[in-house]
Amino acid sequence: MTELRIFPVAGIGEIRPDDDLAQIIADAAEQAATPLADGDCLVVTQKIVSKAEGRLVAVDHDDLGARAALVEAESARIVRRRGDLIISETRHGFVCANAGIDLSNVELGYAALLPLDPDFSAHRIRQRLGQRGLRVAVIISDTFGRPWRTGVTDVAIGVSGLVAVLDLRGTADAQGRILQVTEVCLADEVASAAELVMGKALGHPAAVVRGLDPSFFGDGRAADIVRPPAEDLFR
Amino acid sequence: MTELRIFPVAGIGEIRPDDDLAQIIADAAEQAATPLADGDCLVVTQKIVSKAEGRLVAVDHDDLGARAALVEAESARIVRRRGDLIISETRHGFVCANAGIDLSNVELGYAALLPLDPDFSAHRIRQRLGQRGLRVAVIISDTFGRPWRTGVTDVAIGVSGLVAVLDLRGTADAQGRILQVTEVCLADEVASAAELVMGKALGHPAAVVRGLDPSFFGDGRAADIVRPPAEDLFR
Repeated sequence: MTELRIFPVAGIGEIRPDDDLAQIIADAAEQAATPLADGDCLVVTQKIVSKAEGRLVAVDHDDLGARAALVEAESARIVRRRGDLIISETRHGFVCANAGIDLSNVELGYAALLPLDPDFSAHRIRQRLGQRGLRVAVIISDTFGRPWRTGVTDVAIGVSGLVAVLDLRGTADAQGRILQVTEVCLADEVASAAELVMGKALGHPAAVVRGLDPSFFGDGRAADIVRPPAEDLFR
Repeated sequence: MTELRIFPVAGIGEIRPDDDLAQIIADAAEQAATPLADGDCLVVTQKIVSKAEGRLVAVDHDDLGARAALVEAESARIVRRRGDLIISETRHGFVCANAGIDLSNVELGYAALLPLDPDFSAHRIRQRLGQRGLRVAVIISDTFGRPWRTGVTDVAIGVSGLVAVLDLRGTADAQGRILQVTEVCLADEVASAAELVMGKALGHPAAVVRGLDPSFFGDGRAADIVRPPAEDLFR
């Protein structure tokens, strides 16, 4: 029977610039007696990827003007603005609050910017794990709000080794008719599933999703998830 | 260690109006040697809930005008329209394509409308399972698209026994600072996680999520997830 198992990687310490995330996570997983295994999908939060990649900038947390300037500098386009809240499109094409800049769980006086190329960040972690003999997929996750629905959920901003958007075009339903819904964003569903064991306050910055269908593994990227402007009714 | 286990409920047959969904699902889970247990969250797709509740209407699938009229009748407000695609707000406050009306996996010549009150649908299933001595949470899930991101993900349209939106206001991060992100939509994350084992074409209309943190159980509703108009930047 299909069964997913999802568990956090415990014991990952504070991450610093130039840390080798893949080794730190794989070592922590081994020490916690939950070693990574072939066919796993490793989900890593954006925050520790940004820290390892040195994407930290000094900012006075109480200076709202400086914070807004930083958000604008990290944005390709401002989508909405209300009070201190800025919804913008990042250079990657992600639409999110404050250009994805993170002030929680970062050293006081600093903010964490998004990785420059989160798909490449995921690829690099996957490659390093491959050097250890591990064949796994990697997702870099972040926490985004969305219109119309209260609360945030985790989504994928970087993907390697997994089909990000599963294309079901041409697939028939149980009655033999072609499915109405044709593209499923697997990577976002996996990121959301992983968040359930990481938690915002628990401080587990990585989790393992084990048991995904073999057909879900492949050559996807989070860039596949960015809806082309011409198809987007809400730009 | 925290570990989630997620598996489909196999062997649920075709559902017909007035079927007792709770009994059918619990029986199927027992026969598949994966019985429901206290502390589980049962995720049930909207489609079989709509079928059991007789929310089926006759529609000529090829008559696009009749389909559009049906969508309009089920909508409180049209949000966007392009070609045959209508994005609208349902009477429940959900914003989705075609007012959530479903043509796949429904008998030819029929469409499945959303349940009239999906929170009550979830509550009723949970109550029936309670009569069997089972203390579980129930989510009714549906498949929604979203702006800016390609592909659909499953979300919660009905909730009983689970905190739909986890309020972290006042929670501190690892550095002792108050978290930026204050509300997490647990119910949508659980629905997305469950979709990974149900699949659009696999035909498993229910799944079990086992191992959720005890603090996630409580008195939530999917109505909690509908963002109040005054707070919504994208109405």
